[in-house]
Amino acid sequence: MVNGAQAVIRTLVDAGVDVCFANPGTSEMHFVAALDDVPEMRAVLTLFEGVATGAADGFARMAGRPAATLLHLGPGFGNGWANLHNARRGRAPVVVVVGDHALAHKRLDAPLESDLDALAGAVGWVRRSLTPGTVGDDVADAVGAATRGQVATLVLPADVSWSSGASPGVAPRPRARPQVPDPTALAHTLDAGTVLFLGGDALTADALLAAARVAAGTGARLMAETFPARMARGAGLPDVPKLPYPPGPALAALEGVRQLVLVGAPAPVAFFAYPDVPGSFVPEGCRVDVLTEPGESALAALAALAEAVGADPVLAEAAVPAVPDAPLDARVLADVVAAVLPERAVLVDESLTSGFALFPATAGSPRHDVLSLTGGAIGDGLPMAVGAAVACPDRPVLAVQADGSAMYTLQALWTMAREQLDVTVLVCDNGAYAILAGELENVGAAAGGERAGRLLDLGSPSLDFVALAAGMGVPGVRVTTGPELAGALRTAFAEPGPHVVDAVLPRP
Amino acid sequence: MVNGAQAVIRTLVDAGVDVCFANPGTSEMHFVAALDDVPEMRAVLTLFEGVATGAADGFARMAGRPAATLLHLGPGFGNGWANLHNARRGRAPVVVVVGDHALAHKRLDAPLESDLDALAGAVGWVRRSLTPGTVGDDVADAVGAATRGQVATLVLPADVSWSSGASPGVAPRPRARPQVPDPTALAHTLDAGTVLFLGGDALTADALLAAARVAAGTGARLMAETFPARMARGAGLPDVPKLPYPPGPALAALEGVRQLVLVGAPAPVAFFAYPDVPGSFVPEGCRVDVLTEPGESALAALAALAEAVGADPVLAEAAVPAVPDAPLDARVLADVVAAVLPERAVLVDESLTSGFALFPATAGSPRHDVLSLTGGAIGDGLPMAVGAAVACPDRPVLAVQADGSAMYTLQALWTMAREQLDVTVLVCDNGAYAILAGELENVGAAAGGERAGRLLDLGSPSLDFVALAAGMGVPGVRVTTGPELAGALRTAFAEPGPHVVDAVLPRP
Repeated sequence: MVNGAQAVIRTLVDAGVDVCFANPGTSEMHFVAALDDVPEMRAVLTLFEGVATGAADGFARMAGRPAATLLHLGPGFGNGWANLHNARRGRAPVVVVVGDHALAHKRLDAPLESDLDALAGAVGWVRRSLTPGTVGDDVADAVGAATRGQVATLVLPADVSWSSGASPGVAPRPRARPQVPDPTALAHTLDAGTVLFLGGDALTADALLAAARVAAGTGARLMAETFPARMARGAGLPDVPKLPYPPGPALAALEGVRQLVLVGAPAPVAFFAYPDVPGSFVPEGCRVDVLTEPGESALAALAALAEAVGADPVLAEAAVPAVPDAPLDARVLADVVAAVLPERAVLVDESLTSGFALFPATAGSPRHDVLSLTGGAIGDGLPMAVGAAVACPDRPVLAVQADGSAMYTLQALWTMAREQLDVTVLVCDNGAYAILAGELENVGAAAGGERAGRLLDLGSPSLDFVALAAGMGVPGVRVTTGPELAGALRTAFAEPGPHVVDAVLPRP
Repeated sequence: MVNGAQAVIRTLVDAGVDVCFANPGTSEMHFVAALDDVPEMRAVLTLFEGVATGAADGFARMAGRPAATLLHLGPGFGNGWANLHNARRGRAPVVVVVGDHALAHKRLDAPLESDLDALAGAVGWVRRSLTPGTVGDDVADAVGAATRGQVATLVLPADVSWSSGASPGVAPRPRARPQVPDPTALAHTLDAGTVLFLGGDALTADALLAAARVAAGTGARLMAETFPARMARGAGLPDVPKLPYPPGPALAALEGVRQLVLVGAPAPVAFFAYPDVPGSFVPEGCRVDVLTEPGESALAALAALAEAVGADPVLAEAAVPAVPDAPLDARVLADVVAAVLPERAVLVDESLTSGFALFPATAGSPRHDVLSLTGGAIGDGLPMAVGAAVACPDRPVLAVQADGSAMYTLQALWTMAREQLDVTVLVCDNGAYAILAGELENVGAAAGGERAGRLLDLGSPSLDFVALAAGMGVPGVRVTTGPELAGALRTAFAEPGPHVVDAVLPRP
């Protein structure tokens, strides 16, 4: 018999959840103390809960299994909520352990009392553990829920944590994704009017290769969802375009499509509504078929289809651009990244407007994985880079990060320094919320006046990312040309530990 | 007739809500555009939603009226949630305008879709505005709800914002606080066994002076709640101690009390539960009377009591310590602050462990107001300083800020620089979550092992607050002795605009 906290950590470790991104408070002190009793658990301190939850998101995407996060009551959960939203949208498994007041203390309405269950319930599965005798099984259930592709929260009252009489629970073994009964039923409906719309696990390397064979055999086109949780890319894989983000190009990309086959992706909708623009991007009269729902095995279905109607696929050749000898802009930045990206890199893409050229430029780069902003809640990029680096210590991580979004969870740099993670942060420093300037036009708002413009501008004062990085123990350098950027990135990839490269772009 | 966004801003301004702390996204672009149509609204950009909501909290405490915040869908609300929790706990009026998807877009489950209403409902009043024809009245109702001392959220769908056919609503005039029918009923029960337990509006200067007369006339003691939203202090006011935070000293402070009279404060409870420590601090057998509930007029009740049983009060004399010629520690820091605090300062206190000596030291300093951490959600200090400075441009603001908590919402520095707010940030730089080391003992957890200790340590790498401040355009200086700190604070108070003073304290 152990105390509740010890049973929680032991249950997690036994279920393969052996990393915990933590920002604890008083109600979590027994959990913290128990870390010395269960040394298999690696605890990674973050300076803000949004870093902890985003790191768990990135970890799950790369490791394919959940990390835990340790948060502090309702406000701590609130601080971590946005990146749990991103995890939910990407179906990334995350186990949240959140401390709460002792059972008898709840009714006293102490200052930190709040409706924690409402916050947790709004983003996934939630269980309040009520006795030391059941806490091990409660944790096991939470791990089980998480491995079904969701955020699972265990609310852990302080006295359940500190009381003895607990024992570890046993989490269910993760199930393989279910296979659809007859994946080839659609085989003979596919032709040049078809788009296979790929998301989730249809974007692994093997699934993409199978999809490419289907495309080659039927004439169907391949297209990826706009913000994949994880997508394999590079030379030797099919060069699959993403559905564009802006409504105009998105509608154009799907114009004339006769059949949309969804493979692990929901039907395409506009990210936001705009006056006089349709919310659904499915063309009128287009037939929508579902090959696999999110959570089902896209690989099995695509492989069966390829077996039935496949042919030799067209794959991207190894080809990278030269480093442009020019001042930086978004295109030069993209070419440099494509030119220097190392083999097996993890590219965390929260570049937003500055990254529009990045995706096409890197199609022929060495094989890599791309993680993108699944839920639209900015501030997941740097935390995800932390989690990806912890999950894959043998792979270089490159975070291509918009400047405004970087400021949401910049504290991630400190954890990179403390853990000496091999992360290169490339800040796309254009000094503005550039995406909003475009959106101001898209929504039909009057061309912004001076006061509106001031709300989209990150100048006055300018952010100095080299100083900010230094303040958190990360070396940084500012670059303004293609060759400077290439040199800085090559140095960062060659040296261990984190680096910040502040790429100064034209102001919009 | 105007569009929804214009009606929202016009209604706010007409109701006296003329400051908006904003972090907008696409769904708020019409609100942003409308700022140029209603120039009476001052929009203050923040780089993170927690800064916007904390600034609104600080503004409300100092201005006595709500500011608005502008947030972006569920994730933006999540990012701002913790400081709204603090506002709720301090009964600070805040109007939250949060953009959401257009009405017809909700069912499409776009990436940013989430249960926003659950988040908002968990922290206060919430209304989803459904038509341009009603949006003005909806805003007016939100302002009315906020002025009753709560967080009031208006969910503003994008199309309600962009559609025409709206007109401004009229918010109810704020009501004065209700008076209790017979405040003198308790008069003859008060004696030396009585503690008047003061909170909320019982901590204004006038209410404190009335309370001091009651104390002088009856022998009753005065005590303030542990974390007041706003408390008047300094020479010429009674020196009222606060109920200590740690359970042992708190129980000792109330030992032997026969009668506790609550004036604008809830009955005292422990901030957290601890093994074998009572959750309520009310001594056994102690009678609890309520003079005024939070929200009722403590001033009127105390004035009536003073009229009935008051006598000449004992008030704090003007007396400040000398600047100690010694290396910094928490006591030296407190003496220096007390020695140099300017007349009419706003002292935002999120100093936590480093500030234990601050409160007694400043009793004889020039008159000032103290804002403290009402809801226990760290990261409100720097944002509140932003809001206080916007509310009171003619008063110096001093934020005494723990280092770990500073890192939650450090982006506030950028807004201080942009708006050139007269804020001095004194970072209590002890390189640790020092409060948690104490809590690890309080909860009875085993003396922390090496792995536990690492989760409470902010070193490796050390944070460099001077570099971090420089990165956001704020000048900073590092100090290690009493005279250096005094000099740096005097310079900061004398110069306009924000300053950071990084006070290096002994590591715990």
